[in-house]
Formats: sequence, structure tokens, C-alpha cells
Amino acid sequence: MLEQLKEEVCKANLDLVKHGLVIFTWGNVSAIDRESGLVVIKPSGVSYDVMKPSDMVVLNLNDEVVEGSLKPSSDAPTHLELYRQFPNIGGVVHTHSEWATSWAQAGRGIPAVGTTHADYFYGEIPCTRKMTEAEIKGEYELETGKVIVETFQGLDPDMIPGVLVNNHAPFTWGKNADDAVHNAVVIEEVAKMTFRSLTLNPETKMDQVLLDKHFLRKHGKNAYYGQNK
Amino acid sequence: MLEQLKEEVCKANLDLVKHGLVIFTWGNVSAIDRESGLVVIKPSGVSYDVMKPSDMVVLNLNDEVVEGSLKPSSDAPTHLELYRQFPNIGGVVHTHSEWATSWAQAGRGIPAVGTTHADYFYGEIPCTRKMTEAEIKGEYELETGKVIVETFQGLDPDMIPGVLVNNHAPFTWGKNADDAVHNAVVIEEVAKMTFRSLTLNPETKMDQVLLDKHFLRKHGKNAYYGQNK
Amino acid sequence: MLEQLKEEVCKANLDLVKHGLVIFTWGNVSAIDRESGLVVIKPSGVSYDVMKPSDMVVLNLNDEVVEGSLKPSSDAPTHLELYRQFPNIGGVVHTHSEWATSWAQAGRGIPAVGTTHADYFYGEIPCTRKMTEAEIKGEYELETGKVIVETFQGLDPDMIPGVLVNNHAPFTWGKNADDAVHNAVVIEEVAKMTFRSLTLNPETKMDQVLLDKHFLRKHGKNAYYGQNK
Amino acid sequence: MLEQLKEEVCKANLDLVKHGLVIFTWGNVSAIDRESGLVVIKPSGVSYDVMKPSDMVVLNLNDEVVEGSLKPSSDAPTHLELYRQFPNIGGVVHTHSEWATSWAQAGRGIPAVGTTHADYFYGEIPCTRKMTEAEIKGEYELETGKVIVETFQGLDPDMIPGVLVNNHAPFTWGKNADDAVHNAVVIEEVAKMTFRSLTLNPETKMDQVLLDKHFLRKHGKNAYYGQNK
Repeated sequence: MLEQLKEEVCKANLDLVKHGLVIFTWGNVSAIDRESGLVVIKPSGVSYDVMKPSDMVVLNLNDEVVEGSLKPSSDAPTHLELYRQFPNIGGVVHTHSEWATSWAQAGRGIPAVGTTHADYFYGEIPCTRKMTEAEIKGEYELETGKVIVETFQGLDPDMIPGVLVNNHAPFTWGKNADDAVHNAVVIEEVAKMTFRSLTLNPETKMDQVLLDKHFLRKHGKNAYYGQNK
Repeated sequence: MLEQLKEEVCKANLDLVKHGLVIFTWGNVSAIDRESGLVVIKPSGVSYDVMKPSDMVVLNLNDEVVEGSLKPSSDAPTHLELYRQFPNIGGVVHTHSEWATSWAQAGRGIPAVGTTHADYFYGEIPCTRKMTEAEIKGEYELETGKVIVETFQGLDPDMIPGVLVNNHAPFTWGKNADDAVHNAVVIEEVAKMTFRSLTLNPETKMDQVLLDKHFLRKHGKNAYYGQNK
Repeated sequence: MLEQLKEEVCKANLDLVKHGLVIFTWGNVSAIDRESGLVVIKPSGVSYDVMKPSDMVVLNLNDEVVEGSLKPSSDAPTHLELYRQFPNIGGVVHTHSEWATSWAQAGRGIPAVGTTHADYFYGEIPCTRKMTEAEIKGEYELETGKVIVETFQGLDPDMIPGVLVNNHAPFTWGKNADDAVHNAVVIEEVAKMTFRSLTLNPETKMDQVLLDKHFLRKHGKNAYYGQNK
Repeated sequence: MLEQLKEEVCKANLDLVKHGLVIFTWGNVSAIDRESGLVVIKPSGVSYDVMKPSDMVVLNLNDEVVEGSLKPSSDAPTHLELYRQFPNIGGVVHTHSEWATSWAQAGRGIPAVGTTHADYFYGEIPCTRKMTEAEIKGEYELETGKVIVETFQGLDPDMIPGVLVNNHAPFTWGKNADDAVHNAVVIEEVAKMTFRSLTLNPETKMDQVLLDKHFLRKHGKNAYYGQNK
């Protein structure tokens, strides 16, 4: 079932390696088939060297395995919570990519200070609050998803397609697995450049009008970047 | 038309990838044929993986497409303004290369503190002022070119072949597309090294006489670097 | 003798190059056969380009060569002391990897501030005290092992499989050579990210409960990460 | 003439690229045949892509071309001064490698704070004073050599095989071209790690006894590192 989606998800996982975002098994990608409500996700702890589409695990939104002989990624409950609460997203990525994780470990969101950021994220990429003892000792991975959702109260996940989990690492999402990987690359690039910009000028800011301009020329209904599709 | 120039511009765009200056579609190169006043530029949002010379778009200096079925880079009006105002330049490059962009996001010019810088840029690489709301909401890409030109009042664009656009990223230029790419590599290298030099010694400076010596041994009429041509 | 272990140790040494942890001959890996008490280690100063399993040297725990025509790594006495004092370890790695060595040169342990760290190291990765003149002028490499062991008084080497030797560089260990290399990669990754996190937020910390959660979900008796073996 | 030395020098120049120490034509290597007093050096401004042994230029110690149709590197007079004043050296390297150049641009020597440094450089790698207007306007490249020699008054160039030229970049040397390249790699590695160590701990130092130990175990008459030759 969902053979094409398995191929997309497997390829997206391998793309994380290609983009230098993961080593060992430190990352996972999933995608959802909104029609059936089924999610395809990477298995837990399997090496990228040998991973193939048929290793992908199919889950329903209640976190039950529908198909697959391997255990799903231990982060699956986080992915599922995001699919349940963010109705427009089609793919989710988790990495420990080095620059975004450095910000997450610092407990700081990444402020928007340049157009690279503004082309993809419409404002600061937020960092969650620290999780409570109850959350950590409870259903930890599910609670991780819940604290992300809480962080987006008042924010639009379709306009800010990523987050830093405090003391942990980034999650990104997008309209499908490939788009979520794209955003994982961008968050890493922005995390790196903004770290340096703040070192050079701790007070640096960008004007809201420039943020509007760049985000909306690529994503608004009047977008004019790229070829007409 | 301009088939050779299209090949040069296409190759120069791919060289940006080879030098690690761009990911995805985050960069563009153009070149001008001064005799005809026609500019060849990369199309908008086309992947470097599949880009070929025949995809290049030909524009005149009034920003009208003369040849090509694809839309030109959305940054074309910036390139055209530079060709109109800087009469000796033959190629323009725009990237979001990581170190130069970090300086641009910080709103700081890159001071000349070493001979690597002095070999190519005769003084500080300036950062533009922030653009106004009217400029951003107006013909934004054209206004970007105008604010660059304004920044060079009192400066010689042939001796400082590059600029940082505030909260955005670098533009470089040169006698042709290849030379502009070369300067894009240099600005990135200098941005990286000078970031570190200022961390080690915030007060570091270089003497004007050393700046003169290095720039002029490569670029003045008494240049003696390289083989006689 | 121990042909399979020689292959494992040779491969583990070459993996250090593959992971970018060593240049020239700046690193060494060993493994122990606990049944016979024999240790297989890289020879001293042999280039990785030409290293082969039969070059590996076999030592007993008294630092006597049992087999091999080449001199063992000059760091062998450090490895042997670790095998003698840490009874559960099966492999040892020494590198001058750039980020971990930067911390060692600074004389600082790497605090646990994120889950990447917590997945492998159950608390701060300690830095040894400076060695005394007598230790340095005496049996230096053996004394290096002894100061590492001293640093682990009150710590469990099976739960913190690595250390920084002051003004020197990291040592890591694990259940075998491959596992020790894995931990050498992790210490480098953590050293890099935590350097940046502390730059962004010098006061950053992680809660003990989150450290417990991550270490124990991978290493405790109730571990649930990865596939069932 | 000196065909073997030309091959060595050509290979050493290409090794600079392989080690990531130079881009474009930003580096040069030479070697001397002490018997004849002739120096083989890279030509000026020739791309590494097409460089071959027969392009190498032969000079005598009076800076006269003895063989070769191309102009020698413009830095040749610096190399020659080093060969004249440092009688034991057989090869010289100049690069603008990114980390060492960052220190040179900051006008700071690299202090010895770790054993990686101590394995090759017996103390701080010095930075020259700034050159005077007369020196820069005079025979600049020769004067560059002279200011290096002046910096080594009271220092032994055989025990500290490298220097940073203020506001410029590093020079290294060694018993032959290959050894000088090796030291160019080490100075870059040490520049990178010590930058970070000082960020983590501005007061960090290493004891003289540890510096002695590491330098002398590799270089003294009682050296015991590597295989017996």
C-alpha cells in the first residue's frame, strides 16, 4: 500500500544525508496520505546505507502500525501530533542538524534578520518552552508534539514551517516530504548565518515591510518568483 | 542570438554551485553584450541540475525580454540598473553565500584588514543603507539596484567590485560573468576570514600603503602579478 | 592470531579518516580480546593510505609486544591502562579531532545541554586536571591513562564513554572498536554544537529529567530505541 | 635540470589544493637544491588545473632566472631570503589558508595551548610587526622575507617552522617541499583549534614541561614517535 509515498519518504530520508543534515540514524522523515489518513515513516535505528522503500512503516493517526515489519521511528508520536493539529501539512522532518540544534540547545528562537529567512519563514522560528517533568516522564514523544503545537498558538504553521524543540533539535514540515526536507535545509542555513550576524551585530533587525515583501513574493497569492506552473 | 554569451552565463551559474556559493536556486549570474546593449541572465527558479545555455533569457536594458521562453530571474531589474550605471562592468552575480550574507544581515561593511582583500577590493566592501518602505513596496528589485548605486557615490565600482545589500546578501560584478563569479568567491573568503580576525582583535586595521601596494600590483597600470599577456 | 580483531581495528582506524576525525597519523584505535587479555593496536606513525590488518600490533596488558614487526602506537600505554581499569570496555580511540580538541586545549569539560549529548553521554564529558611535571617527565603515556582513570573516580566509564585530556585531545571508548569510533564521532559533534550553544546563551542548561530520559531510552534496561535484536 | 625537484615542487603545489589550503592561484611552494644553490618555484598566476613540472621556474639565490619560460611567483624574493638566512630549510610554502590568515589579519601570534601545536612548533607561532612604508614601497617581497627573519631573532626557525606575516598570511618551511606543506596543514589546524580554545577560555595556557615533552618526543635526538628508519 502507498508504494509511491514510501518511495518519496525513503528518498527524502536519504536526501537528509545528501544535504549533510544527519549522521548515523539521527533523523527521520514522514509523509501523510490525507485521503486515507495514513502516515509513512522511517523505521527506528536503521542505517541510511541499507534503507529501502519497503522498510518504511505505515501508521494510522492513532499510532497503530498498519503495515511494516519494522518498528517505526521512536519519534513517530511527535509526527502524528503535528499531522493531527496542522491540517495542511503533508510531510514532517526531524534532524539534529548542527546549527539549528545549537540554537535549540541554547533555548533561543532564530530571529528573522535577512531575506533568506524571509523567503521561507514569515517571522522568528520559535523555540519551545522547556518540557515539564510530567511531560518527559509521560508519553514523551507525544508530549513533544503537544509542546510544539502549544508554541504555535497565535502562529500559522503554514507560514512558519519549522520549530526548535528546547534542549533538543529542529522539526520542520511542508506540503510533502520533499518540501519538509527543503525547509530543514533552509532552517540550517538560516541558523548558521544568523548566528554569525548576531556575533557581528547583536542588535541587528529587519523591517517588517522587507519581511512581508520577501515572504509574499514567494508564497502569497501574488507570488511572482519562479516559472508559472 | 548571443549563443556564446549564453554558454558563458550558464557555465558561470553552474560555477556558483561548484564553488559552494549557492544551494537550491539561490543565486543568479548575468552578462552584457555592450555592443548590442543586450543582457543574458539565468531564468527564475530553475534548478541548477537541469539548467542549459538555451534556458538563458535575453533582455534589453529596458527590462524587456528579447528572446527566451522562460521568465528571467526576479532579480533582473537589479542587474540591469548596475549595467546602466556602471559602464565598465560586463557581468553581475548575486548569491546568498553564507559568510557574505552574514555580514549583510548584520548591516556591516567588510573592512579591509588583509592583503587577500586588498588584492581584489580597494577598500571596505560597503553595506547599503536599509531600504525605505516606499522602495520596498515599489519596484523593489529596481530600487535594490538604485540603493547600490547610491552607495557607490564617491566610490569606484571598478576598484570595489562588490557590495552587501542590507538585510539581504552580496552582489558582485566584473569585466565578464567569470570575473564576477571570481569576485563572488573572494568576497565570501574575505567575509569569512575578516569575521574571525575581528573576533581575535576587534581593533585590527591595515595601513593604506599596504592596501595600495597589493591592489595596484595586480590591477594598476604597473601591475606585475601573473604572466604577461 | 586474532585475525578478525586485526581487521576490525584496521577498519576502525580507517573509519576515523572517513569521518573526518584525523589527518596524517593523528589518531589511533585499539581493541581488546578479553578472553586472552590481548590488545590489538595501530602501529606508530604509519600512513592511513597504506595501513592493512597485518600491520596491527598485538600487545599483552603488560605492554609487551606479542606479535607484529612494527612498533605499536606511542599512545599504547594509555590504552592499556584504560583496559586494565575499565573492565567492561572493548575498544579505545584517540584522535585530535578539531572541536573536541579545542575544548581540551581550553581545559573545559563539555556540559550536557541537549539530547544529542544525552543520547550517548550521561552527563558532562569531563576534562582531566593538568598533568604534573613528574607525570610528564615520567612514563608519560601511562600517566595519561592514570589521570583519565583518576578523573573517573565517582563517574561510570560505561555511561560516559569519553574524556578530554587537558591541553591535549579526546579519548573515547566503547564495547568494541567500532563503538568507540562511534563515540568519537559523537563527542566531536557535541563539542561543536555546544560551543555554539554557549556562545548564544552562556547560561544554557538541560534538566536532569531530560538527560535521564534520553540516555535511558537508548541505554537502560528499558531501552526502546532501534529494532529489537 | 633538477627534474626530480621540479616534480616534487609541482606535486607539493597541487597538494596545497588537495589539503584545502588554497583556491585560485593563492599559494606557492618552492624547494632548494643546497648543493647547487638553485631554487625551484611555482610560476606566477598559473592555474593549478593545468600546472605541470616543466612549468616550474629555476632561480639562483640572487633572484635570477636560470631556467624556465614563465615568470616565477611574485613572492619568490621572500622565499629566497628565507633560504639565504635559514640554512637548514629545504622547502618553503606560502598560502592564504583561511584560519592562519585570520590570525595574520588580526596581527596576533598563535600561542601554544595544546599538544597538536607542540608536536610541530616549539612555542608560539609568531606574527611579524607591521611593515613600514619604506619597506612596502621598496622591494616589498624581499622586505617581507627580511621582516620574517627579523621576527626570528632569538628564535630557531628549525624548531618553529612557520610565521604569520602581519595583515597578510602564513609562510611555513621544512626540510623539503613536502615537509613545508605538512607544516602548512598543521599551522592551519592549530590556528583553527586555538581560535576556538581561546573563545572557550581566554586565559588558557600549556605548561612548558608538556610543550617540551611533545616537541622532543617527535623531534629531539631521543625521539621515539614513528617507526625506526
